[in-house]
Amino acid sequence: MIILGIDPGSRITGYGVIDASGRRPQYVDSGCIRMKTDEPMANRLLTIFQGVDQLIALYRPEVLSIEEVFLHKNPQSALKLGQARGVVMCAAAMAELIVAEYAATRIKQTVVGRGHAAKEQVQHMVQSLLKLNRKPQADAADALAAALTHAFHSKLGGLV
Amino acid sequence: MIILGIDPGSRITGYGVIDASGRRPQYVDSGCIRMKTDEPMANRLLTIFQGVDQLIALYRPEVLSIEEVFLHKNPQSALKLGQARGVVMCAAAMAELIVAEYAATRIKQTVVGRGHAAKEQVQHMVQSLLKLNRKPQADAADALAAALTHAFHSKLGGLV
Repeated sequence: MIILGIDPGSRITGYGVIDASGRRPQYVDSGCIRMKTDEPMANRLLTIFQGVDQLIALYRPEVLSIEEVFLHKNPQSALKLGQARGVVMCAAAMAELIVAEYAATRIKQTVVGRGHAAKEQVQHMVQSLLKLNRKPQADAADALAAALTHAFHSKLGGLV
Repeated sequence: MIILGIDPGSRITGYGVIDASGRRPQYVDSGCIRMKTDEPMANRLLTIFQGVDQLIALYRPEVLSIEEVFLHKNPQSALKLGQARGVVMCAAAMAELIVAEYAATRIKQTVVGRGHAAKEQVQHMVQSLLKLNRKPQADAADALAAALTHAFHSKLGGLV
């Protein structure tokens, strides 16, 4: 089972692909879709859509795993985040993927062992769990963490 | 010039199509894309995307006109609205439409003559300006108002 984790944002959208077929999840790919900040928002959103669409075509995941968002502090940031997030979910639904949503605290709990871990700890644990040579970029690490959370919760006990 | 106005929402997305080629804008179509509230959010967003995509294929608009959103009170609502809005803007960018955004106060100012008009007044003025037999549904009226605002501001003085 291939899982695509996505960490959407209006500037940078992180992605992480893992293979959860075996006993332990294997790293496949990760990186960032970067938006040109001088482009109109509609074009940035199209860049996200096409980026996610290409990842789906390339890796044929069954599931898209994404962080659930609760109680964002700033309504204007929530709106922008929502725009990016909506496009990601739409691309997944179009390709008939299952969309799995996990609360940020649950992702951190799964990957780090504590619901309120710092970004660096997520990066560190993602590197360790997937045996990567170097620390993944922060947004890519969050995307990989979302994918790992689905891998763990879809076959309880399989990861940690 | 055909203008597609969209009023996005996570339950109902209103749309309104006008033809602004002549001296006065002509009504073409309006209505609502309704989401099944028992469906997962990703599928609802896909319904919006496909609905907007079909409208673009049918009417070949040059411009998509949409209300700009400022300072939403509730961050959770802002996120949901953002998701719907993102999908609409992405569909427009994919079809290479120009995306025009207008502040709510500017739309009301243009259509009703006052920046803080009630929903009913927008419906009433949209009906009057487009010579409709009956009052359009509220979300469709907002979408038509966004389209009319672009018609007006793209050829100053053409409408009011």
